[in-house]
Amino acid sequence: MGRTSDAREKILTAAHSLIELRGYSALGVAEICKAAGVPKGSFYYFFESKEALALAVLDEHWEAQRSDWARVLEEDAQPLSRLRRLFEETEAGLRAGQQSCGTVSGCIFGNLTLELSNQTEPIRERLQQIFDTQVEMVDKVIAEARERGEVAVGDTREAARSVVAQLEGQVLFAKLYNNTQHLEALWDNCLSLLSARRTDTAAVSS
Amino acid sequence: MGRTSDAREKILTAAHSLIELRGYSALGVAEICKAAGVPKGSFYYFFESKEALALAVLDEHWEAQRSDWARVLEEDAQPLSRLRRLFEETEAGLRAGQQSCGTVSGCIFGNLTLELSNQTEPIRERLQQIFDTQVEMVDKVIAEARERGEVAVGDTREAARSVVAQLEGQVLFAKLYNNTQHLEALWDNCLSLLSARRTDTAAVSS
Repeated sequence: MGRTSDAREKILTAAHSLIELRGYSALGVAEICKAAGVPKGSFYYFFESKEALALAVLDEHWEAQRSDWARVLEEDAQPLSRLRRLFEETEAGLRAGQQSCGTVSGCIFGNLTLELSNQTEPIRERLQQIFDTQVEMVDKVIAEARERGEVAVGDTREAARSVVAQLEGQVLFAKLYNNTQHLEALWDNCLSLLSARRTDTAAVSS
Repeated sequence: MGRTSDAREKILTAAHSLIELRGYSALGVAEICKAAGVPKGSFYYFFESKEALALAVLDEHWEAQRSDWARVLEEDAQPLSRLRRLFEETEAGLRAGQQSCGTVSGCIFGNLTLELSNQTEPIRERLQQIFDTQVEMVDKVIAEARERGEVAVGDTREAARSVVAQLEGQVLFAKLYNNTQHLEALWDNCLSLLSARRTDTAAVSS
């Protein structure tokens, strides 16, 4: 049993790296197994298809990212400073990835949304659930900030969606220009999108 | 000659549709030629590789989109209402695409940025040029609005990049949820990102 779960994990890890570097369609099962050092025959013991593998990669990555987001967004600090920390950690994560593989590979959820969401319903649904949860998590923080009078937004859900959209858009630029500095604009843009009281937030950010 | 240029155009049109629907990596030259109704042998008469074809598709699409953007952004109207018109036309274009093929296929430039920009330098460079020009065109309008005291931004180039990033992020959501209503937030978000004087822009928008 130890050995089989090891093989599954190896396939997941290899698939995650390969999907980040080259997308989904460009990959074949044989290549993934070769990178994982696992015989091709064992692939279908763990996954019924390449699509099932992609869903498992999304789940595993989201489980880790969700717990990172929860750690940051639910910590005991002012709401806006938690949001700021989320952007800082996202930037740091992309920078670390760039240093290790030479290129900004972006957000695997955004990548697969643009590559695949109009082609496979199971992947579209999973990605919708993931982004719904991201928006919900940001929404909660914005609602807290609004209760404290720090932001002036009508619909906090809509505002949260705009903040996540801005994040995805700037990550797209970071990938395009292979430059994580584009993400530095996120905090300021977030304050603008939330009509935040700059005096308060200047204090938060110092 | 009439016949050969017709074949080139057919390949470009078929490739554009297929890339929008299924991305780049999933496609083969044979499939593109079949969809174009052109013998596979003639493909390499016009394009030295699939990558060369993708670059030609990007160029052709950008030529058309650039002229649309110029028409809207350089017309004789108040700068902010021109920007608003750009979002409205983008939304209308995506809605028309959704009606004709059943699904929002998004922005081909954004799609290929996330699918390919970290893999092929020629495509990365071309996409950088395209987004640079988009940002430049938006920048000019923001600078005009700033001169009129309608927006309060420090760095107009940075602000333009954030507006385009927001556009790409919301188009990503429109594709993910197969719903162009997400784009309705663009105008309000643009005003926020530009710290626009809402009283002026309310007048513009009415």
